[in-house]
Amino acid sequence: MKSVVDILDLSVSEVDELLDTAMDIIENPAKYAEVCRGKKLATLFFEPSTRTRLSFEAAMYELGGNVIGFSSASSTSASKGESVADTAKVISCYADIIAMRHPKEGAPFVASKNASIPVINAGDGGHHHPTQTLADLLTIKREKGHFSGLTVGFCGDLKFGRTVHSLITALCRYENINFVMISPDELKLPGYVKNEIPQGRGFTYTETTDLEAVMPTLDILYMTRVQQERFTDIDEYLRLRDAYILNPEKLATAKKDMIILHPLPRVNEISVAVDADPRACYFKQVQNGKYMRMALILKLLNDVKCGKTEDKEQGDVYLYDFKCDNPRCITTTEQELRQVFRVVSPENRICRCVYCDTKKNY
Amino acid sequence: MKSVVDILDLSVSEVDELLDTAMDIIENPAKYAEVCRGKKLATLFFEPSTRTRLSFEAAMYELGGNVIGFSSASSTSASKGESVADTAKVISCYADIIAMRHPKEGAPFVASKNASIPVINAGDGGHHHPTQTLADLLTIKREKGHFSGLTVGFCGDLKFGRTVHSLITALCRYENINFVMISPDELKLPGYVKNEIPQGRGFTYTETTDLEAVMPTLDILYMTRVQQERFTDIDEYLRLRDAYILNPEKLATAKKDMIILHPLPRVNEISVAVDADPRACYFKQVQNGKYMRMALILKLLNDVKCGKTEDKEQGDVYLYDFKCDNPRCITTTEQELRQVFRVVSPENRICRCVYCDTKKNY
Amino acid sequence: MKSVVDILDLSVSEVDELLDTAMDIIENPAKYAEVCRGKKLATLFFEPSTRTRLSFEAAMYELGGNVIGFSSASSTSASKGESVADTAKVISCYADIIAMRHPKEGAPFVASKNASIPVINAGDGGHHHPTQTLADLLTIKREKGHFSGLTVGFCGDLKFGRTVHSLITALCRYENINFVMISPDELKLPGYVKNEIPQGRGFTYTETTDLEAVMPTLDILYMTRVQQERFTDIDEYLRLRDAYILNPEKLATAKKDMIILHPLPRVNEISVAVDADPRACYFKQVQNGKYMRMALILKLLNDVKCGKTEDKEQGDVYLYDFKCDNPRCITTTEQELRQVFRVVSPENRICRCVYCDTKKNY
Repeated sequence: MKSVVDILDLSVSEVDELLDTAMDIIENPAKYAEVCRGKKLATLFFEPSTRTRLSFEAAMYELGGNVIGFSSASSTSASKGESVADTAKVISCYADIIAMRHPKEGAPFVASKNASIPVINAGDGGHHHPTQTLADLLTIKREKGHFSGLTVGFCGDLKFGRTVHSLITALCRYENINFVMISPDELKLPGYVKNEIPQGRGFTYTETTDLEAVMPTLDILYMTRVQQERFTDIDEYLRLRDAYILNPEKLATAKKDMIILHPLPRVNEISVAVDADPRACYFKQVQNGKYMRMALILKLLNDVKCGKTEDKEQGDVYLYDFKCDNPRCITTTEQELRQVFRVVSPENRICRCVYCDTKKNY
Repeated sequence: MKSVVDILDLSVSEVDELLDTAMDIIENPAKYAEVCRGKKLATLFFEPSTRTRLSFEAAMYELGGNVIGFSSASSTSASKGESVADTAKVISCYADIIAMRHPKEGAPFVASKNASIPVINAGDGGHHHPTQTLADLLTIKREKGHFSGLTVGFCGDLKFGRTVHSLITALCRYENINFVMISPDELKLPGYVKNEIPQGRGFTYTETTDLEAVMPTLDILYMTRVQQERFTDIDEYLRLRDAYILNPEKLATAKKDMIILHPLPRVNEISVAVDADPRACYFKQVQNGKYMRMALILKLLNDVKCGKTEDKEQGDVYLYDFKCDNPRCITTTEQELRQVFRVVSPENRICRCVYCDTKKNY
Repeated sequence: MKSVVDILDLSVSEVDELLDTAMDIIENPAKYAEVCRGKKLATLFFEPSTRTRLSFEAAMYELGGNVIGFSSASSTSASKGESVADTAKVISCYADIIAMRHPKEGAPFVASKNASIPVINAGDGGHHHPTQTLADLLTIKREKGHFSGLTVGFCGDLKFGRTVHSLITALCRYENINFVMISPDELKLPGYVKNEIPQGRGFTYTETTDLEAVMPTLDILYMTRVQQERFTDIDEYLRLRDAYILNPEKLATAKKDMIILHPLPRVNEISVAVDADPRACYFKQVQNGKYMRMALILKLLNDVKCGKTEDKEQGDVYLYDFKCDNPRCITTTEQELRQVFRVVSPENRICRCVYCDTKKNY
């Protein structure tokens, strides 16, 4: 049973296949209108996320399938203390595929190990959100035609923005990409993400605090929100805030064919006045997200039909003697769940929690 | 893109066309069972209204379509600060038509200006609720055959009852109707609604506090709830309450073919004992509401298919320099939304907020 | 209009017919995939119960029908004071069949008396939950082939466990069954349930506090949760708790073909380590619950099509002069609902509330 918890659960060729399927869906929607007739998607949203939930539901309906589920934990058996593992087993009796959102990091991974149907991670805390990344990739592909040779700026909160981390991870599997990181010092990209960027293969990496200075160089500008609560110093926040709000003035020096991305919802980090600019592609991302979710649902259900099973990672070393320190890890709440760490760097004695990826020295 | 925010967004001939379609749906349901196959209705209910929501959903399913949406704001991105405009743009990527309920007056209007799909107002605060009025009209049409020549009594809270205001507005476009307003002085019909009633064309208008006195004259009795919270003097409330509760005794003097309407839910303003009376039509209203919503969804989707666009109001004068005083107006919460007023009476220097219709002197 | 509020609303031959239909659905799902095309199930859940709700929804979709509804009271008109009776009448305009969950005992009965469509009780407080019992029966039938001659152990909280009471009631209509009740003294089966067990027809009845002592004799072990809040003495709770937690060690002496049932959700009363045991059938119960709900929906809709009406109970004597003492009875909240008691034992002057079955001496 193949599930997608992390964007890296999909190989580059699988991502390319999904992009191709999505393009074909866009060209020939009628061809796909009944392909999931009789199939059911379960949207298990343990915290609200209307946009993502409705995107999955629209995707399933456009494939001819049906949807069951819930939109917040308050209306679930979780309040009666049911484990994620049991929920996954029960829902496997009702549906053909699961899209799960959960505030605990690693919850969809636990579900994927217990369900007898495919599980798609629709966001687990600050951890993974692979279908947002698929939406970003399709938008770049459709607007730019390719990933290679682009100068990609990420602006705003690069420290906590999981969509930024995940898109960088995904782009690092291609080549010749110039990353430009634009953020206040407080919100710089974490070292462990930066370390993923290949040395060589045409990758470059620049950091700056000045959006306007780098604007003319960018092919893509990926905006994120600078949240007040990230700052200890309110004056510092107020000083910085305006520098990272995108408006028509700041766009004056941008390339004519630059594209502006944003994972939404936005609050005020992109002025409404920018929406009319043809370079604004954030509502196209929404549309593309639906198409990529259609492609992903279709692929996973087809894999089931063909009897394809999960690719086993071979040669990995696991450790079981530690407790994960991440308070948002699913291991802190799920009953009878064994702690498991995968050794990622034996020479440095570093392992990572298999659920939430938090690093641990051993 | 045609949307229906106010009952007046539909011309008399469009209302008549909807009534005809609804009658045909009732006669030939099978003919319509698949007409919306592959289409999606989004029910965006920013406050709960189970009856209205389920009516829209049942309507869409009986047309062969599907439904996505949410039933209360707590499970939406609105809690993350997303604007109504952005929500409308996003949902346009997922659905073919929107039914929106919102506590802020004018919110569906804002949605209609930003969506690329038709928007139906399913109730915005105390402002508009056009599909309830359509349900009322079909019930009168089916039970009475016509609108002309009827004596229509409205009883209870005529001050705040938006369904009363809206039905009066709709009926004023026909002719020869006798309005009888039955209410305590505290809850009389507001002047701005009364002023809509034509002088001439066979209209008459009477006010009374005495339900039993006028009962024998009525062809239609439209009941509403007298809510305790509308009164400052509790003794006054207790004294009046029973006078406006409909029971079999009060019905003794009514015409044999009078019909009793109520927008529901009722609490105690109509005794359960009345339900068995053949004149009780409030559950028929529920049924008719579903049929009119089917007719409206169908019409708006057909308008899209035919490329019909919104009728432009010509010659209107707009002002932009004021702030709307209505605390329930969408302009109080929606970001980057410009205040706009339409001049309705240049001689008296009166304009109205285009969102919530609140009057302003300029 | 036939409704199912209590498992006893179905005759033994009707239950057998449902079991046969469910078996046929399992064998030939494609045969049923479109039988409810155009029909709508309304899931009216006045309190959350995700598992039961999703089971009904999955059932309806697998029959080709659609679903409308709500998952908690907070998003309903009930908060505006609408009665269960009015809700039932309104929903009858929107759907073809209702599944209702309600915290008040007797609410689905009130709905069934006011709806013009069939009502299925999906759980009313601590009162009835007939579709769980149907799930239990199908699981026993599929795993054991028959009900006669079995030794059935019920373990845990037998005092408050309504699923236990209901399954005993259902099994008492067959013959040759040995009941073994395993519980702490505080949580023994109530006398009124025990009294239902026939004297003769091959029934035996044993009580014990010792699970391990009786384990080797059981064909079926029905586990329930021992909740801390049932105990006044916390030390007593802690002393007893472990004795009623099922784990692989305790299963060592059980028959090789014993089956383990549990209504779910479980918390810790069955160790996760038991899940891998082939005798663990509680997730099969989930699957079977969906099939029995399919069979029941189908039967009730077919009864409507054939014009079958409710079987009238003849010869019953009713009393109207008392007030029900049960604070969870629907009569405590539903407006204008007459108190009705059915005489069940004239010689002992005992009657029962027709809504919640609470006993009253007259």
